[in-house]
Amino acid sequence: MDLLLLAPIGSVLALLFAAYMAYTVMKHSEGTEDMQRIARAVREGANAYLKRQYTGVAIFFAVMFVVLLILALNGFLTIFVPFAFLTGGFFSGLSGFFGMKMATNANARTTNAAKQSLNAGLRVAFSAGTVMGMVVVGLGLLDLSFWYYFLTWFYRDLDAAVRIQSVTSAMLTFGMGASSMALFARVGGGIYTKAADVGADLVGKVEAGIPEDDPRNPAVIADNVGDNVGDVAGMGADLYESYVGSIVSTSALAVAAGLGVDGVTIPMTMAAIGVIASIIGTFFVHAKEDAKQSVLLAALRRGTYISAALIAVISFFLVWQVLGMEHIGVYFAILSGLLAGVIIGYFTEYFTSDSYKPTRDLASTSTTGPATVIIGGLSLGMRSTSVPVIVVGAAVLASYFLAGGAGDFNMGLYGVAIAAVGMLSTLGITLATDAYGPVADNAGGIAEMSHQDPEVRRRTDALDSLGNTTAATGKGFAIGSAALTALALIASFTDEVARIVQTQGLDFKLDISILNPPTLVGLFVGGMLPFLFSSMTMSAVGRAAQSIVMEVRRQFKEIKGLMEGKAEPDYARCVDICTRNAQKEMIAPALTAIVAPLLVGFLLGVNGVAGMLAGATVSGFILAVMMANSGGAWDNAKKYIESGEYGGKGSDSHKAAVVGDTVGDPFKDTSGPSINILIKLLSMVSVVFAAFILQISLF
Amino acid sequence: MDLLLLAPIGSVLALLFAAYMAYTVMKHSEGTEDMQRIARAVREGANAYLKRQYTGVAIFFAVMFVVLLILALNGFLTIFVPFAFLTGGFFSGLSGFFGMKMATNANARTTNAAKQSLNAGLRVAFSAGTVMGMVVVGLGLLDLSFWYYFLTWFYRDLDAAVRIQSVTSAMLTFGMGASSMALFARVGGGIYTKAADVGADLVGKVEAGIPEDDPRNPAVIADNVGDNVGDVAGMGADLYESYVGSIVSTSALAVAAGLGVDGVTIPMTMAAIGVIASIIGTFFVHAKEDAKQSVLLAALRRGTYISAALIAVISFFLVWQVLGMEHIGVYFAILSGLLAGVIIGYFTEYFTSDSYKPTRDLASTSTTGPATVIIGGLSLGMRSTSVPVIVVGAAVLASYFLAGGAGDFNMGLYGVAIAAVGMLSTLGITLATDAYGPVADNAGGIAEMSHQDPEVRRRTDALDSLGNTTAATGKGFAIGSAALTALALIASFTDEVARIVQTQGLDFKLDISILNPPTLVGLFVGGMLPFLFSSMTMSAVGRAAQSIVMEVRRQFKEIKGLMEGKAEPDYARCVDICTRNAQKEMIAPALTAIVAPLLVGFLLGVNGVAGMLAGATVSGFILAVMMANSGGAWDNAKKYIESGEYGGKGSDSHKAAVVGDTVGDPFKDTSGPSINILIKLLSMVSVVFAAFILQISLF
Repeated sequence: MDLLLLAPIGSVLALLFAAYMAYTVMKHSEGTEDMQRIARAVREGANAYLKRQYTGVAIFFAVMFVVLLILALNGFLTIFVPFAFLTGGFFSGLSGFFGMKMATNANARTTNAAKQSLNAGLRVAFSAGTVMGMVVVGLGLLDLSFWYYFLTWFYRDLDAAVRIQSVTSAMLTFGMGASSMALFARVGGGIYTKAADVGADLVGKVEAGIPEDDPRNPAVIADNVGDNVGDVAGMGADLYESYVGSIVSTSALAVAAGLGVDGVTIPMTMAAIGVIASIIGTFFVHAKEDAKQSVLLAALRRGTYISAALIAVISFFLVWQVLGMEHIGVYFAILSGLLAGVIIGYFTEYFTSDSYKPTRDLASTSTTGPATVIIGGLSLGMRSTSVPVIVVGAAVLASYFLAGGAGDFNMGLYGVAIAAVGMLSTLGITLATDAYGPVADNAGGIAEMSHQDPEVRRRTDALDSLGNTTAATGKGFAIGSAALTALALIASFTDEVARIVQTQGLDFKLDISILNPPTLVGLFVGGMLPFLFSSMTMSAVGRAAQSIVMEVRRQFKEIKGLMEGKAEPDYARCVDICTRNAQKEMIAPALTAIVAPLLVGFLLGVNGVAGMLAGATVSGFILAVMMANSGGAWDNAKKYIESGEYGGKGSDSHKAAVVGDTVGDPFKDTSGPSINILIKLLSMVSVVFAAFILQISLF
Repeated sequence: MDLLLLAPIGSVLALLFAAYMAYTVMKHSEGTEDMQRIARAVREGANAYLKRQYTGVAIFFAVMFVVLLILALNGFLTIFVPFAFLTGGFFSGLSGFFGMKMATNANARTTNAAKQSLNAGLRVAFSAGTVMGMVVVGLGLLDLSFWYYFLTWFYRDLDAAVRIQSVTSAMLTFGMGASSMALFARVGGGIYTKAADVGADLVGKVEAGIPEDDPRNPAVIADNVGDNVGDVAGMGADLYESYVGSIVSTSALAVAAGLGVDGVTIPMTMAAIGVIASIIGTFFVHAKEDAKQSVLLAALRRGTYISAALIAVISFFLVWQVLGMEHIGVYFAILSGLLAGVIIGYFTEYFTSDSYKPTRDLASTSTTGPATVIIGGLSLGMRSTSVPVIVVGAAVLASYFLAGGAGDFNMGLYGVAIAAVGMLSTLGITLATDAYGPVADNAGGIAEMSHQDPEVRRRTDALDSLGNTTAATGKGFAIGSAALTALALIASFTDEVARIVQTQGLDFKLDISILNPPTLVGLFVGGMLPFLFSSMTMSAVGRAAQSIVMEVRRQFKEIKGLMEGKAEPDYARCVDICTRNAQKEMIAPALTAIVAPLLVGFLLGVNGVAGMLAGATVSGFILAVMMANSGGAWDNAKKYIESGEYGGKGSDSHKAAVVGDTVGDPFKDTSGPSINILIKLLSMVSVVFAAFILQISLF
């Protein structure tokens, strides 16, 4: 049997399972009329946002399509590149869209189920998360399979080695489309959600002294919409990009490694195996009706670990079957990726969960005011970068030498690339445990706004805090795999350059020594890009939040009877302000990622671009980890104080911790996760435009 | 005439001029008995601290001396290395010590002179700063000349090419001694000063509501001592290290560039010319008695620009004379360094001064509370990294290609190294304009504590704020030159490795391509080190400040009549707590810098070490700029609000801005400046231990 057929089969399985899970969620009731009304408002806001976002992004894609078409017609690219680019963007957006649809339909249903028990609430929210996880991997495999089979058919007359080369390099563009879409979705959604969150908190909690999610706060619906467009739609597009990015970058290295079609079969079928293992894993996520929180967490973990174990076992036979015992090192490369993901996930949790010392120590700094909370949180985040760096470093060395031995450079790089695929192979289920978090968060908001029994809110809060822990693990996977994939893409870039130089007989010497001045300067420029990018996204959140603050203050002042609960605030205006701001603000950071490789390529040549990619990957990885962990720790330090430590809610310590949490919001949900995409998009753009850069560069 | 003789001559001139300036300062009166008493307390505290610090550091130097001696006796190093290491450390420490002596003697004298006029105060403070500037360059040239002449004499029987090689590589160790001392001084002093500052502010200003520098605050003397041990002694040792580091790293590259002794003559005589130009420059720093602040700033700038112009002219003839027209590109490399320093200095000022938009915008974020101030400041700092990165990148390319053309790699690297010397050639006067700041700061403290006329305090405040502006420029030079010197040192490292491999006939291939796995992993590890290091120093400040907070709270509670001004606080205890904490806390970060290259060398080999150095230089440079600029902008945004904007002193905006300023304290005065030294020390250690690393490494 052709093992590659597993890819389309896996895709169909994933999508069918997603449809089934969506059906089970929709069977539940949305509860009282009040709950339905709020859920509808959130749904409408989210739909309106996505519609506007997709319209804006469509313009970008149209322009890029034309640019790519012109380049293709001038021989810089193959003719399928512009089309592959479009489908990548389309499916990435679709993943986010389906995830968001499901999430906005599941939030009130989760609240309603939570009236019954904690476990019932978990089931609904987790099922919604599973839909998202399965849609992402299903659409990813669908697109990959389609292009693979289509291109292989189209190039059927070519020599096998040339054919697979042409196929894999066209598929990379598909990754670039996905990355572009993901960046817009993450940045736009991230700005939206944090502007609404920060804006709502600054006026509501701090100035007016009303609780979180209070229906009197005009920004409260925007805040809930934000969870869906940022944490759900943004994350879906993001992880779709990570998933296909890791697979296409591995495939692209297969040719140089001398593996040919087999080298493409491995990552594609690995992904299919991951789908099946994830589906099996989800059946192990269940608990007794009266289960406690820790039991539920154990249930979620059980599902992930079982999937990982299944993959670890099956992929051995896969590598053995496809590549033979001679290349069994590739299996160990996969294993080292899988293991590295688990270790990074564990340490992310260690640094950000209030069950451990770092976050508890951070909570204690709140007794001396907000300044020490900020210093402590930044210091924690900076310190926490050491473990992921060492683990990723070890994974790179291990996968390189296990797959390639000391002598085979290209097999070694293939090993690094496949390690990322290994790390992401459990995505179906890890994304399910991750995506259920924002659903639970929304469910809590709906409970509050529809004045449910406090016990319901307590249960949704428990689900939400569970979601924080699983989100930390999910972020570990996303960041770790981004670093590995980016490295694979840098290798693809130099491969591509070498190929062009050879086929076109150019007089050019690739020299990516760190002491070659253009490479060195590229390293500096690349190292700076994530800082510049984070600055842009953070100040975008700041500016957008400022407009929300003004609007909420205005409504508090102008709408009579609002604070007494006699009049309704104008929720729609806040939703609209967030939408417009997010749209406007996402353009500059996204363009940076597209323009930087071209500009650096023009000024410093391809050696400079290689340096830039390495610099951006190193500093971006470190900065992303730091921002994610500082942000997570601030959030949980605040929650720890709210649980009654250091004076509890309303104390000065709590106020200091809220400052940390607010600073952490754009860190962990806007800038940090966007950096992952940035470093990959930079590399994708460089690979796709390699021939063009060689043509225009001054060096 | 042997131009090299200019070096010892310049050294003697600088030291004589320093002695003369010290004499003119000491002629002034220290003012009233009250002022004398306070100045004495500060002096005693600073002396006690330095004594304790030097004792602690002596142990470290003794251990390192023995280690180096053992390595030298086993043929890994020449026998002079341990001794050169000691003298580097000794003179670096001595620079800080003299600077501190002068500063603690000039503070009350500045206060007293400020009673007369703003200009009179400036003259005393600037003269004290000049002493520091001249001592640093004088001692630097003294040590350099001594070792150069001694080693040349000792190796007189060797072939000229081998001789200069042996001389320059022994002189590098002298740089390593200076860097080690500088790191201890910067980290220890930085922890001291910020712990005292933050601690004093948190309880005094925030909790008790008494003004800054109020004599009732038990930490107020410690705070003033801190300015001297951190901003003066620490900065002196730091810039001594930058100065000699840039010269020895250039010298070390002279051999590979094929310039021989002439390649050493250039940086040494450049430095001597800089001394003379700086002395001339100081005579242009004067203003009329009733001059305004802006006129004084112009006077300070005039001195620096005149010195720079003199150097720009004279060094043309120097390069022409020594290297001939064939190598006139070296002159343009020097010019590009000089120019890059000025541009970076200007942009540092742009981003951190409240005369410009960025800091004013930051001040406006204070209206929505401390969280937006923090987000705004971090964002500003991140954004501000782009200009220095681009300027340094341009300087690297310009100096490389101007000195070496497209083909001569080694001449190109020599050009990069000499650019750093060009940037630092005005150090005599830039340091003078920089070091006078803490003197003015202290003078303000003494004015407050001795209850002088508010007009006196207003004048010292004006001097202090002038100092903030010049300090920003000084930091630009320090950071920019650190990046260039570190790059030169990486080149020295690979040179040294290549030399050892060749002479010992080792079977080893130097491969520092960014895709060679050990180099790549080294890049990641190196990129992480400045983050880890900053985390350590920041949390050290946090912990030390916490102890001060506890102590001040205790004294406020236990000493009866303290708040009413009827009893004196126990200043000495706070001084002692700061001293002990700084001593304890400086060990771990400093050891990191020594141990990291050895550990990475053991695990990843010299290719990994080269990657680590590049990674640390890139991320360290960017992080240092970010921290310095965020910190500076927060400080000045607070000052801007205090000048009456957004509600002025005591308003909620002001409170929010104080949070930013407090977070900025360890950023700009502890972690940020220490990173400059860290990246150079990592490189120095790698160069000195290169032979040993080659021996022990697994790869």
